[in-house]
Parts: sequence; C-alpha cells; structure tokens
Amino acid sequence: MLCDNISTNREGHLTFAGMDTVSLAEKYGTPLYLMDENKIREHMREYKTAMEKYFPEGSVPEFASKAFSTKQIYRIASEEGIDIDAVSQGEIYTALKSGFPMERCFFHGNNKTDGDIRFAIESGVGYFVIDNEDELLALDIISGEMGIKQKSILRLSPGIDPHTHKKISTGSVESKFGVAIETGQALELTEKALKCENIELLGFHCHVGSQIFESEPFITAADIMFSFIAEAKNKLNFNAKMLNLGGGFGVRYTENDPLIDYGEKIGEVAAVLDDKCNKYGISLPKIMLEPGRSVIADAGMTLYTVGSVKEIKGYKNYVSIDGGMTDNPRYALYEAEYTVEIANKMNAEKNFVATVAGRCCESGDLIGEDFKMVKPQRGDILAVMTTGAYNHSMASNYNRVPRPPVVMLKNGKDYLAVKRESLEDILRLDV
Amino acid sequence: MLCDNISTNREGHLTFAGMDTVSLAEKYGTPLYLMDENKIREHMREYKTAMEKYFPEGSVPEFASKAFSTKQIYRIASEEGIDIDAVSQGEIYTALKSGFPMERCFFHGNNKTDGDIRFAIESGVGYFVIDNEDELLALDIISGEMGIKQKSILRLSPGIDPHTHKKISTGSVESKFGVAIETGQALELTEKALKCENIELLGFHCHVGSQIFESEPFITAADIMFSFIAEAKNKLNFNAKMLNLGGGFGVRYTENDPLIDYGEKIGEVAAVLDDKCNKYGISLPKIMLEPGRSVIADAGMTLYTVGSVKEIKGYKNYVSIDGGMTDNPRYALYEAEYTVEIANKMNAEKNFVATVAGRCCESGDLIGEDFKMVKPQRGDILAVMTTGAYNHSMASNYNRVPRPPVVMLKNGKDYLAVKRESLEDILRLDV
Repeated sequence: MLCDNISTNREGHLTFAGMDTVSLAEKYGTPLYLMDENKIREHMREYKTAMEKYFPEGSVPEFASKAFSTKQIYRIASEEGIDIDAVSQGEIYTALKSGFPMERCFFHGNNKTDGDIRFAIESGVGYFVIDNEDELLALDIISGEMGIKQKSILRLSPGIDPHTHKKISTGSVESKFGVAIETGQALELTEKALKCENIELLGFHCHVGSQIFESEPFITAADIMFSFIAEAKNKLNFNAKMLNLGGGFGVRYTENDPLIDYGEKIGEVAAVLDDKCNKYGISLPKIMLEPGRSVIADAGMTLYTVGSVKEIKGYKNYVSIDGGMTDNPRYALYEAEYTVEIANKMNAEKNFVATVAGRCCESGDLIGEDFKMVKPQRGDILAVMTTGAYNHSMASNYNRVPRPPVVMLKNGKDYLAVKRESLEDILRLDV
Repeated sequence: MLCDNISTNREGHLTFAGMDTVSLAEKYGTPLYLMDENKIREHMREYKTAMEKYFPEGSVPEFASKAFSTKQIYRIASEEGIDIDAVSQGEIYTALKSGFPMERCFFHGNNKTDGDIRFAIESGVGYFVIDNEDELLALDIISGEMGIKQKSILRLSPGIDPHTHKKISTGSVESKFGVAIETGQALELTEKALKCENIELLGFHCHVGSQIFESEPFITAADIMFSFIAEAKNKLNFNAKMLNLGGGFGVRYTENDPLIDYGEKIGEVAAVLDDKCNKYGISLPKIMLEPGRSVIADAGMTLYTVGSVKEIKGYKNYVSIDGGMTDNPRYALYEAEYTVEIANKMNAEKNFVATVAGRCCESGDLIGEDFKMVKPQRGDILAVMTTGAYNHSMASNYNRVPRPPVVMLKNGKDYLAVKRESLEDILRLDV
C-alpha cells in the first residue's frame, strides 16, 4: 500500500488508520475528509527529533499552516512542541483561537497589509518573516507606534531551481517571494533592517519549493545562505542567529513516488552544514524548517460516493463522484497525481481504466485521468489517498457546493475537527 | 476603454458604471467586487430580445448560475423574465431563497446524487438536463416515488472541438458531460428515456464550450443536433420540442479580444436554422441558450490595494495586492488574461511593466504577467476589469483569506449584494 496507515479488512473494505472507511462514509456521509491524528504526530516527531539531534539547540520545525489550517491542527502542534508559520490574519486567528502559544508563530507572506501587521502584533506573533522593503518600512513604523521591537527575519531568494512544478517553485531569483541575493538587493535590505529602530533582526529565511525528494536543493540553499550570512557579517557586522530553510520535502502520492525518511534527509543536510560554515568562517546558526505537506498529506484521505459510470465506446471511461475540484482543486491547478481505490470492493479485480471526474459543471474538474481500478457502480465509495495537504485548505464553494467535514481518526476512535458546511452556511452572507 | 461602463473622471480616478472606484474602495475596503446592475440587465435583454426575434415562440435564455450565483442575480433574472440553469443543490437553494420561480430552472450536472434529485424535485425545478444513464434510472425511480412525471431533456455530446482552452471545452466526444452521438449511445439513451414512465422527454441539450467568438461552432452543433433529432424522429417516432444549444459566447478581457454583439451572433445562428431543419425534414424546435460569462463578466470589476512593489533588478517587477487567487483563481487555473488599471492614477503615464501577484503563499497566485501600467505605490488602488464571471463563484478561503463583498452599482447608487466574510465566518465550522 501507499502508506502504512492504509490497509484492507476482512470485509474487503479499505481501512485508514485502522478504521473501516465504508462505515465512516456511512456515519458521516460523503464527501468526507479523514485525517489520521497519529500519523500527523508521527511526522511532527520525526522532524522534531531529527532537528534536535542534528541541528544546534533551539532548532525546531514550524508546521506550514497553509497546507491545513484548522483549530485542531494547532492544538496538536502545540502538544507536540513544534512551532507554526502563518501567512494571513485568518491563519493567525485560527491558531490564536485554538490556544496556540503565539510567540512560537512565524508570520509569512509576500504582501502584509498595515492591517495584517497590526493584527499580528496584537495577536502576539513571535516573528515576522519580512518579505520586502515596503513591508519593512511599514513594520518599523507600526511596531514603533505599538511600542514594541518586533523580532524578525528577512526572506531572501537564493536563486535556485529545484526542478519541481513551476507553480510550486519559490526560490528562483524571479520569484514573487523575498529579496534577491544575486542582485545585491538582499544585502541592501539587511542594512536597512539593521537601521530600523523597532525591528530586531535575527536572521534569514529562504524556501526553494515544494514536493522535493532530494536533500541537494536544501544543501545548495544552505550554502548560498551561509555565503550571504558571511557577507552580512563582514560588511554589516551582523551575526545571524537563525536560518530558516523553509519546507519542501516530497510526499508519496502514487506508487511511483519514493517514500522519504524525513529524519534521514535532515541528517544528510546536517552532515554538510558544519563544513559549509567553516568554509565561510561563520558559526552555525539555529536552523528552522517549515514542513507542511510532508507532515499532513499522507495523514489524509477523502471519501466520495460514485454517481455515474460512463463508458464512451472507443474513447474513454468516466467515474463521477460527489465532490471534486471544490474539495480538491490540485488536479485542476497542477495536474497533481493521486491514487484511488474503490473502498467497498478492495478484493475485486482492477480491470477498469477510467478518469475520475468531479461533479462541477467544468471540464477541468477531474481528480485524475486513466486510473486502473475496480469497476465501480453508483453508490460505491471511492477513496482518494494522500489528500491531507492543500485539499481542505484550498476548498471552494464553486457551483455552491458545500465543503466536506474533517473527521480525525485516533486509536480506533473518530471525532469531528471541522463540521460539514450547510446550504445555509453558503447563503449566510447573501443579501 | 475595454467596455463602455469604464471611464476616468476629473479627479483622474477610474469610474465604473459612472461611479468613482477610489471612493468605493474607501467606503467598502478592499478587496472588493463591484457589479454593474444595468450592464447585467442590458446583456440579459440583448439575449432575450434577439431570441424572441429570431427563434420560435418560447425560446428564452437561461442564465448559467455557475458564473455568478447569488440571491440578487436571481432576483434580476426573474425581473428580466429570463430562465436560469443550476448545477447543484446550493444553486437551486440560492435561487429558491431569492424567490425565483423554480419552474423556470433547468437542473444540470454530470453527477446528480439521489439526494440532489429529490431536493430538486422538492424545490419545484422545472426541467432536468439528464446527463447519463445512471441519472436517468435514478430520476425515473425517484420521480415515481414522489408521484410526478419530471420534464427533462437529454444532454448529448455533439463531438465538436470549438478551439478554446482544453479545460473549458465541453462538447467533444471525450467530454465528461452528456452522451455521445457518434457512438450510438445517445440514441440508445433516448430510447430508454422514452420508456421511463416518470420522465417526460422534451428534447436535447448540447454545449460546445466557453469563450467562443464565432457563431460557427453553434451552427455546427445545431446541424449535428438536428440530424440527431431527425434520427430520433425516424427511428423512435420522437418529436423533440426543445433544443438547448448551451452557452459559450466570448467576452472581452483585453483589448486584443473582439467586442461581440450577442444579438447579431444569435441572428447569424438563426439565419441558417430553418434551412438546416428543412435539410433533415424536421420542424424547428424551441431554442434555448445558456449565457453565463457573457451576461456577467464585463458587469464586474475587482478593486485591490497595492501592498508592495518589487523590482528585481535585471529580472522582473511585481506588484502585490491584498487579494489574488482566493478571489480570482482564473489565472492559476487557466492563465486567463485580464486588464488592470491603477484606479487613483488614471492620468499618469503607463511606463512600468509588472506581474500582478496575489497575497497567497503560492507562486502560482498571480492575476497576470507583464502588464503595462502606471507604476503604483503601497496604498494605491489596483482595479482588475471584467471579473464578473467565475470570480465570486470560484472564490476560496485558501490561506484562510476571507472572501470580498459584492457591491452592486445602479444609477449612481451602490448597495451590498454579498457581505464581506469575517474571520469568525471562516472559523465557524472548526471544532
């Protein structure tokens, strides 16, 4: 199976986190997001343990909220002792309302409004990840007005192409994020930041992209960042205490993707950091990582009910489900690949090839094309694996389709983390 | 200007529907969807008048809800005497709650669940557009249980490639929508439908795609559909009373797009219909069209506040705004093109080339690339034209960003059609 939390039981039903998915579909209805709480905790611990083992004291993972932002995930992160990042008032507010200790929150984003800055400071956010000069100047003024000195790091673009999908590559010089090292603008902005009275600069941030299976892009990024840290030390007499290398480790969506041991990858990165620092004559700063997808993706599964099975003779087959791009827009956006199963017929033969289509009035509303699967019938349960990241968080009400609930599974018990949206909810703001 | 509802006033501010957009941004905040009510009514009348003039009695446009579904649009459609289509319980519910006469609603969709079918019948939906055999059988059973004979038409796929974006092409044999004529399956399903006791078959539907600027694909579709109607008459003794040719006329997003006179296009299509019918020996059925985008797109504009202006020396420039793919995912989905203006600096020189980036933590979150524009500063108002269709309806809470309000403009007055979403709204379903 794709992940060790997926199996088949005696009834020939798909199980997830040890629980019968067909029963869960019956109990909660479909579409339905399932999340395996133990798997989330397992990944958080993998990162935390490896970072404590290999990196300097105080190095810690931050969960990247954008992958899955709900009150319950912040409670889990808080219990596991990991930090979080947030990119908006909405993510900050969710964490705050969950009781998350906000001094362990990093505030990201390429466009923080004055309102965002004020809101984040009032919420007690620990660190700003300053993206650009406009933000730096605004933050300095607002921090001053609010009588604080805001701990911050600067987001730099290291100029790396990590060979991933264009839309999820973030570290190139041309990226919308951060300040380019190559153009000299990063050093200029560091100098300006150091002159800001109401900003305490602690270090730097970079992020190379997402869904990366090698440690090499992170090592390359670290090398570039260390070189920059050395330059800042030599030219500006600034000692960076913190280096955030972002997120980006890959996730196994299909059998063709490798299964990554994140602890091992962190070890590979760590092994070369001391040498790199020696090369540039600096001491190793505290290292931060921002895993999102790799903490949460394979902790998720989505269940749908099959509505129609269409065989276009001589062309192709379609299986239509009662969800789609509204709860999972990743195929529509990136042609992202997934693995599907017919949850109530796991022991039947997979002799049918079909495209899985969503219910929206939109040709691009697909979960994927040409899956080899058990031939389903109306009423069967179709499960899509590895949907924990960027499904719930990217969901929409396109076609006025309500968003599914999130049910967490833990030690054989299930509980609601997010309630199912109703038609009333969708209409609430209409006048 | 792109559309006749866009201009510049004495203060050098962009106006929309005759109103100062800078004042509207100040009054309601940004991001902000504006809709020009008179323009919506103008387009609805264009379609209605032309269809009454050129097509048989009873021919009427249906507004395609998926482009923009709010209570207020259904009130306007009701007042203008046009029909609607809906593709989900949510769209039906919205229309129902607005007081729309539901007997004038066509229920679409490639995957209607049993629950959807029951809900639509209970809501008094006039017509089902049956997509496939699974739905036909389910509808026959449920209609029987509910003691009605449901008026319906069958959606067929005519096998046409209208040379538009793959994701919005819907009429090819391989489409997820409808039943293919070419494979013989359309005739088989017609025969089955005629045998269903609880279904009253009235005719057929096809849809070739979206953003089409010529009348030729519609004429080709009509020819294929008439040929099929003749076949159904000859082989099954069925006289189709209704032919729905779907939607799809193009909209002017940039100066490179033509400005279409929809009435004229309908005239062009109508001119050949009688001849086509004579060719196949059938009488011209009632014709329906389903305009969505072309009714609503240029009646919309979105206002944003500029947050940062980033010049990556030797590479490219970015202007970041306080919205993006959460309120307009069309660039992320289709690389859709738009026109932008700096609303408070309309008389300044356009000597800056920049990519307009949204605020999401996502590289693909762009409104578009390489716009020639006035160079803006933090705090300026950036307007994106022609956002009436598939912006509000496709909006998400990605990054937990609240969705903007919809403000309608009419005869120099502004009023709220959809309220701004709050952070509380976003958290409402979190446990």
